[in-house]
Amino acid sequence: MPAAGCQEPIRGVHGVVAATVRQERGRQVKAFVMKEIGRVGFMEKPDPQPGPGDAVVQTTRALICTSDSHTVQGGIGPRENLTLGHEAVGIVHAVGDEVKDFRPGDRVLVGAITPDWGDLASQNGYPSQSGAPLGGFKFANSKDGVFADYFHVNEADANLAKIPDAISDEMAVYCADMLSTGFMGAEKGNIPIGGTVAVLAQGPVGLMATAGARLRGAGLVIGVESVPDRQKLARMYGAGEIVDFTSEDVVERILDLTRGEGVDTAIEALGADVTFQTAVKITKPGGTVSVIGYFGEGEFVRIPRVEWGVGMADKTIATGLCPGGRLRMERLLRVLEAQLVDPSHMTTHEFRFDDMERAFEVSDKKLDDVVKVMITF
Amino acid sequence: MPAAGCQEPIRGVHGVVAATVRQERGRQVKAFVMKEIGRVGFMEKPDPQPGPGDAVVQTTRALICTSDSHTVQGGIGPRENLTLGHEAVGIVHAVGDEVKDFRPGDRVLVGAITPDWGDLASQNGYPSQSGAPLGGFKFANSKDGVFADYFHVNEADANLAKIPDAISDEMAVYCADMLSTGFMGAEKGNIPIGGTVAVLAQGPVGLMATAGARLRGAGLVIGVESVPDRQKLARMYGAGEIVDFTSEDVVERILDLTRGEGVDTAIEALGADVTFQTAVKITKPGGTVSVIGYFGEGEFVRIPRVEWGVGMADKTIATGLCPGGRLRMERLLRVLEAQLVDPSHMTTHEFRFDDMERAFEVSDKKLDDVVKVMITF
Amino acid sequence: MPAAGCQEPIRGVHGVVAATVRQERGRQVKAFVMKEIGRVGFMEKPDPQPGPGDAVVQTTRALICTSDSHTVQGGIGPRENLTLGHEAVGIVHAVGDEVKDFRPGDRVLVGAITPDWGDLASQNGYPSQSGAPLGGFKFANSKDGVFADYFHVNEADANLAKIPDAISDEMAVYCADMLSTGFMGAEKGNIPIGGTVAVLAQGPVGLMATAGARLRGAGLVIGVESVPDRQKLARMYGAGEIVDFTSEDVVERILDLTRGEGVDTAIEALGADVTFQTAVKITKPGGTVSVIGYFGEGEFVRIPRVEWGVGMADKTIATGLCPGGRLRMERLLRVLEAQLVDPSHMTTHEFRFDDMERAFEVSDKKLDDVVKVMITF
Amino acid sequence: MPAAGCQEPIRGVHGVVAATVRQERGRQVKAFVMKEIGRVGFMEKPDPQPGPGDAVVQTTRALICTSDSHTVQGGIGPRENLTLGHEAVGIVHAVGDEVKDFRPGDRVLVGAITPDWGDLASQNGYPSQSGAPLGGFKFANSKDGVFADYFHVNEADANLAKIPDAISDEMAVYCADMLSTGFMGAEKGNIPIGGTVAVLAQGPVGLMATAGARLRGAGLVIGVESVPDRQKLARMYGAGEIVDFTSEDVVERILDLTRGEGVDTAIEALGADVTFQTAVKITKPGGTVSVIGYFGEGEFVRIPRVEWGVGMADKTIATGLCPGGRLRMERLLRVLEAQLVDPSHMTTHEFRFDDMERAFEVSDKKLDDVVKVMITF
Repeated sequence: MPAAGCQEPIRGVHGVVAATVRQERGRQVKAFVMKEIGRVGFMEKPDPQPGPGDAVVQTTRALICTSDSHTVQGGIGPRENLTLGHEAVGIVHAVGDEVKDFRPGDRVLVGAITPDWGDLASQNGYPSQSGAPLGGFKFANSKDGVFADYFHVNEADANLAKIPDAISDEMAVYCADMLSTGFMGAEKGNIPIGGTVAVLAQGPVGLMATAGARLRGAGLVIGVESVPDRQKLARMYGAGEIVDFTSEDVVERILDLTRGEGVDTAIEALGADVTFQTAVKITKPGGTVSVIGYFGEGEFVRIPRVEWGVGMADKTIATGLCPGGRLRMERLLRVLEAQLVDPSHMTTHEFRFDDMERAFEVSDKKLDDVVKVMITF
Repeated sequence: MPAAGCQEPIRGVHGVVAATVRQERGRQVKAFVMKEIGRVGFMEKPDPQPGPGDAVVQTTRALICTSDSHTVQGGIGPRENLTLGHEAVGIVHAVGDEVKDFRPGDRVLVGAITPDWGDLASQNGYPSQSGAPLGGFKFANSKDGVFADYFHVNEADANLAKIPDAISDEMAVYCADMLSTGFMGAEKGNIPIGGTVAVLAQGPVGLMATAGARLRGAGLVIGVESVPDRQKLARMYGAGEIVDFTSEDVVERILDLTRGEGVDTAIEALGADVTFQTAVKITKPGGTVSVIGYFGEGEFVRIPRVEWGVGMADKTIATGLCPGGRLRMERLLRVLEAQLVDPSHMTTHEFRFDDMERAFEVSDKKLDDVVKVMITF
Repeated sequence: MPAAGCQEPIRGVHGVVAATVRQERGRQVKAFVMKEIGRVGFMEKPDPQPGPGDAVVQTTRALICTSDSHTVQGGIGPRENLTLGHEAVGIVHAVGDEVKDFRPGDRVLVGAITPDWGDLASQNGYPSQSGAPLGGFKFANSKDGVFADYFHVNEADANLAKIPDAISDEMAVYCADMLSTGFMGAEKGNIPIGGTVAVLAQGPVGLMATAGARLRGAGLVIGVESVPDRQKLARMYGAGEIVDFTSEDVVERILDLTRGEGVDTAIEALGADVTFQTAVKITKPGGTVSVIGYFGEGEFVRIPRVEWGVGMADKTIATGLCPGGRLRMERLLRVLEAQLVDPSHMTTHEFRFDDMERAFEVSDKKLDDVVKVMITF
Repeated sequence: MPAAGCQEPIRGVHGVVAATVRQERGRQVKAFVMKEIGRVGFMEKPDPQPGPGDAVVQTTRALICTSDSHTVQGGIGPRENLTLGHEAVGIVHAVGDEVKDFRPGDRVLVGAITPDWGDLASQNGYPSQSGAPLGGFKFANSKDGVFADYFHVNEADANLAKIPDAISDEMAVYCADMLSTGFMGAEKGNIPIGGTVAVLAQGPVGLMATAGARLRGAGLVIGVESVPDRQKLARMYGAGEIVDFTSEDVVERILDLTRGEGVDTAIEALGADVTFQTAVKITKPGGTVSVIGYFGEGEFVRIPRVEWGVGMADKTIATGLCPGGRLRMERLLRVLEAQLVDPSHMTTHEFRFDDMERAFEVSDKKLDDVVKVMITF
């Protein structure tokens, strides 16, 4: 996901952590952790053990996300020695007694969000909100994340997905968050076939929103981006027009591209007040602003009153958190199998897990035109 | 509707006005107009004539709306000698050659919004936005309104509805805007049967949102209101709990009433920044904020960032403008026929059209615990 | 639900039964079972035990359903000594170690459908289909039902709901199936406020569909029924018109009542080919046929081709199976709390559990104008 | 569209025909007509004239549809000297006084369906049903069609769309019916990104349903077809698997391809009872059968009861009629502009209008592996 969630520790965090790391069987795993706000590094941790319905996965590939940086900066509050990372694939190492569909040795994908499926929010159709607001987001939030040799997965039958032979780990790992979040932006945007879409910011999630808009049959996808490499990727993923906010007025230009009407759907993929305002302004009456950015700053996010139609223009503002779960992951893997999207173009850097500190620095400081950093275990 | 729309004159206003009033057959109608910003009064106007698909209706009952006051205060920009009013019923006086389903003498209801049905926004499912943002709102905005002996209706076959014998004019006139807007708040709020709903502000539109929430099967409707008479009406229309913002913390109280979860749906029926913020805060993850208030002030309407789930809590903010058209009006009349809602409890004052200046003052200055003022022609 | 489901034993049935009844701790429960096709009676069974996430409930009230008769007649295939019944309330007797929100002594409602919430069908939004088609329907199908002193509930935190003090057992028990299935008919029927609805057959589920149509704000609900007592109940639950198929042509009459247009929504609540055909015929183009009847006979259910608009009239045929789960049950209980519907009018007969054989006979043979038979434990 | 509609003459047909052909200015147009059931040929007809809101278009390209054959065979009842054809592009020749957005000389696309936009069915969201069931289908049904030098279009501003310079007439003409109907099959099928879809029959409309499934992001599209050329086209338009019903069991094979679950969406694109049954059988619980075929025969279309889940498997059967109107056409043209679909592969034959009799024979008798026949004027 673009970034993490709550300011407060999430309900049940201690119980979960306890369940996964308490046992002391001697074997230790190497983990890349947030030691405290602002400080990261390696440490040894006890080997995680699965509960009756859970699994432990041996990590093979992981991706670093902007939200890992947010977390380290204190975005979800203080954490001590919390293993980072939420985008990973691996090999099932162990499963609990009640797990039916997975066995050690299975090559699996794990969604960044691993919901409690029986929870009331899940029953209501919003599993990402299970347990608490954004409560499905457990990795590197309410329990240890995936930047470790092994990591724990709750409700394995519901939260793991087998990776088909035809799909490499390097491709599959993008489903965990990037495809799921980006595509959600398109899905919640209610795009009609042939509709017009603007995607504001072409970072990895915005790029996958661009691809997602194409997957829903958008007739025109406008990518808003100033970085040339990202503009190029945006075109590759389906943007028919690029608007560079450093050299032109975004609202004016997008209205021009749409006969003055505005777009059917504006996808906000940055998480900034000003971009959100632009999104509202460029959306036609009856259209949808679909938010996938993480809004990390300020007391308010501001809706421009007049362009919002003084609350009467039938504009909808939708939000959501990266859908997880086995069904979602299986569907995303099918998109890869059908070769509809190739996320590997976003991998600008690759590091061994041993070089994680350098890898994190590249991602964190956005060095060297980084888009996405892949870690090999 | 709660209030009017655009800051700018709407496309085509002059043409429309010309078409409806230019003819000079001698007969004059008496109209209650906004002479200029801040000034109202009677004047004589030429008798309106129907175009080929239009009708002219002789007014029998009308209601004054808060948005008439907004308009006079300049809310939609300057207007000169514009007839006010958008809520009326009457008798068909004349129809154009192409009108098929209505004849002079028919007792009819006219929606406050009279869309252009072939327009692209209408084809997109948003007729209230036809022609321009909020463009379906023509009366007392882009053409003369209904506070006159006679008024003009575009696309008569599509925008008129016959009033069944069993329903009085005094009841039917509430469908034009109050029921349509209020119920829309409930409909767009996506209320599940047995769901929890809060309606913020129990003015006439809020009261009809309360009734609308009941009509959709809400299990608990919480009315937020401080005025005793309105609290009483709220209970009558289905509020099971009343929260008085002058004596208790609205957010805290509503979270208490919902086990800390928040409501499935919050309906904002005031149009104020602070109420909107409350609506976002009291809505559960996965829930909907449904806006029916007119936001008349300030550059921005502000979303509280953290309670919005930093853009990730699956909270949806929906808006809309009073649905119009014959089908809608027929359905609302059926609600009255089935005696599901009795809007007449809201009529606190009645005046003859000749006393319109006093009537307007009562509504405008909210004198004498006014809820809704009815005018008889 | 109107009746049961699959012709084949459902996946996992043996495992589940084993888990719930195999243990032999000595205590026996009294159960009313289907001994084999066509034969019912009491028997002693081992006391059920909860798994880690499960509960055992001591039954206080139960209702007999038409589908219990279907099951006994072989509707879901042969069963041996299967405890019957799926509509019950009771007191929590025991819970497994992982149950968080329920404790022995809690007065609870259990949905007739108790889904596996992590299953792929549940993740897809269709928990009633979890595990297999209609797989959420476990009681008296893939495991023992509720006509026993004690019964077992899977995933207790997700499938139980506490009953508020203000609601009696006699009221709450109707939520398990009758309200949930009947209201689903209205919900899936996509009824607009003020819309027109016909409910075909006013048995208990049809009556609750009638009530459900009112809960969604239907403007006209037409009940099709010939039995006077049921006609009377239909009016009580909101039918504004009654059509008696024994004395008038249903299609003709309903078209008359709707200006020749047909209804927005037809709810089929019988499960018969001919009624289904009528439902298609009386539904307007763009309308919905919502099926809640159990279709127990014949190789085919037949759509009348021409009235279906030769496959082009934008008519939708929706189906579903009684939604279960804690959230649903809580919402239905809230409907009772708000006194929006009083299901107790349907209780025509009451028996002690000891008189279950006579009670079953009354329900099975539809003696004595029975609508619904309540059992007290 | 696959084929035409009603057995009965449609309301208003005589009025419309009168309006369009009554004037006798001397000029005659050449038209290819259905003289009576079973007989076609050329004839001269009076030059059509536009009403105030209408247009007359000079035809440049047209396509022959299977439904033209159905009509000639009597599928919509007897017609005398009715001009055939409903898929065309051309040049605006004349417009009525009230037409605002089109002028003579404009190159335009006309949807096969030209709704009355103010009608109650249109207000209800189903413009294809305006005026009567399937009433939006006017060409070659309730008024003269497009196989003529000039043809009449009602509500020009709402039913015409300008063709962008980049798109040839040969491409644009496919939007009128083929893309609109085929894509509707995908849209109404409620396909999730990465979902599984089967399209039963790969005629022109089925091929565009295949393309439409891809446009909505299906992960696996299974085309059911036996003709090698059509199988090849199906793969070109996005089918990842082909099932040949002449050599394998369709139900068994599709269940195999989907782990025994069935597809999320089955699109019936033939209009045959047996294919419809297959569609129900291969759809998973919670899935959708989306019907775009024209069902021309038999009293009933039959649902297989058990595989339908005895009416309880949450399977939805959706239907519809080719969406028309300017907005739809503009969106489809945008799909062509973005080069997402190239319909020209379906043009197997081209003829001059003078050779229409031979052209019709090729299409009618399915000679020479015809897929689609284009006519040049």
